[in-house]
Amino acid sequence: MLIGRVIGDLVATQKHASHEGRKLLLVQPLNLDDTPRGVALLAVDSVGAGVHEKVLVVLEGRAAGEALGRRAAPVDAAIVGIIDQVTIDR
Amino acid sequence: MLIGRVIGDLVATQKHASHEGRKLLLVQPLNLDDTPRGVALLAVDSVGAGVHEKVLVVLEGRAAGEALGRRAAPVDAAIVGIIDQVTIDR
Amino acid sequence: MLIGRVIGDLVATQKHASHEGRKLLLVQPLNLDDTPRGVALLAVDSVGAGVHEKVLVVLEGRAAGEALGRRAAPVDAAIVGIIDQVTIDR
Amino acid sequence: MLIGRVIGDLVATQKHASHEGRKLLLVQPLNLDDTPRGVALLAVDSVGAGVHEKVLVVLEGRAAGEALGRRAAPVDAAIVGIIDQVTIDR
Amino acid sequence: MLIGRVIGDLVATQKHASHEGRKLLLVQPLNLDDTPRGVALLAVDSVGAGVHEKVLVVLEGRAAGEALGRRAAPVDAAIVGIIDQVTIDR
Repeated sequence: MLIGRVIGDLVATQKHASHEGRKLLLVQPLNLDDTPRGVALLAVDSVGAGVHEKVLVVLEGRAAGEALGRRAAPVDAAIVGIIDQVTIDR
Repeated sequence: MLIGRVIGDLVATQKHASHEGRKLLLVQPLNLDDTPRGVALLAVDSVGAGVHEKVLVVLEGRAAGEALGRRAAPVDAAIVGIIDQVTIDR
Repeated sequence: MLIGRVIGDLVATQKHASHEGRKLLLVQPLNLDDTPRGVALLAVDSVGAGVHEKVLVVLEGRAAGEALGRRAAPVDAAIVGIIDQVTIDR
Repeated sequence: MLIGRVIGDLVATQKHASHEGRKLLLVQPLNLDDTPRGVALLAVDSVGAGVHEKVLVVLEGRAAGEALGRRAAPVDAAIVGIIDQVTIDR
Repeated sequence: MLIGRVIGDLVATQKHASHEGRKLLLVQPLNLDDTPRGVALLAVDSVGAGVHEKVLVVLEGRAAGEALGRRAAPVDAAIVGIIDQVTIDR
């Protein structure tokens, strides 16, 4: 799983039937010091996350489908938590 | 999922039986400012996408198979939406 | 699988129901000489690992779900061992 | 899926039982202008591809197993087509 | 699949129950000219490979589990062959 910040969303009119009603969010992966890391990705929301929130993202198809409670969903990334606190103790 | 643009297609005469009748499209991944990012990939179409359209792509085998409604399809990427609008709010 | 060191943990109040009661640990991947390699990742613990311990991590959704004994868990990485010794013989 | 060229093969005497009788080919991934891209990989053949042919490769375990018609095969890449023509229209 | 050389092993006393009795080997991925490529990874052995041997590795959870004959094993890489000969014909 990775830590990211929701930075936007996406509208697609013509889409796979199983995506109807799903919120597709743009997520910017973060380093541990909250600076952006790499390129933004698209994840389906499963916890009611909103823009600017710091979130926990799973990056694998089976896991993302499970997050939506639909094993058959054609998704490969999902938001599975809203993060309150990260504690680092090197 | 990632955002890309359809830039071409591919013809293969000798192919796995389950690919018969499938449209294989070349997709160029895009950055958020619509500039190309990395190398083009091949994705099976599940929504009737055409050349020049901006599309939503899943990059995982199980998810791509589900997009085609065939859990057993030997594919690892599928186009699952045609994108109308991307809203970024950093 | 990769070798890493636990360097912290994460608290998320709003999370997917199947994550309740799971410990989410921050793991820094290591080179063979124990120097850090790349960015830290988040893994669910399945063996009772603690901060500073050197651990064995699986990085794939199905495997991580199996580590938790829950095929349906929306996770993509899990700690599956605490490492005692690495022997290198080039 | 990616486009590659078959550049060789591999012989392994001691191998997993389910690999018996399978042809393991070395495939060099290609850019759209047919120049080599990155390192060669090993893929199981499912369409009777030969050396020098331009092929379509799936890079995921479930998909590769399906290509062989064996869901249980321990493979993570398979050749699923021989490419005739790639049309690019940017 | 990739080609690698076994360069060591790993001992973990506290580990997931399904790993008991499994040999965990350190594998250095190789280029086609047998020079090392990237960082070493950990793979479960399914063919009785030993240190210094050149091996065939699958890098995906489902495939690795199949190699062990245990669909439920929390592993993401497995050695599935000992390589005798690689023929390159560019």
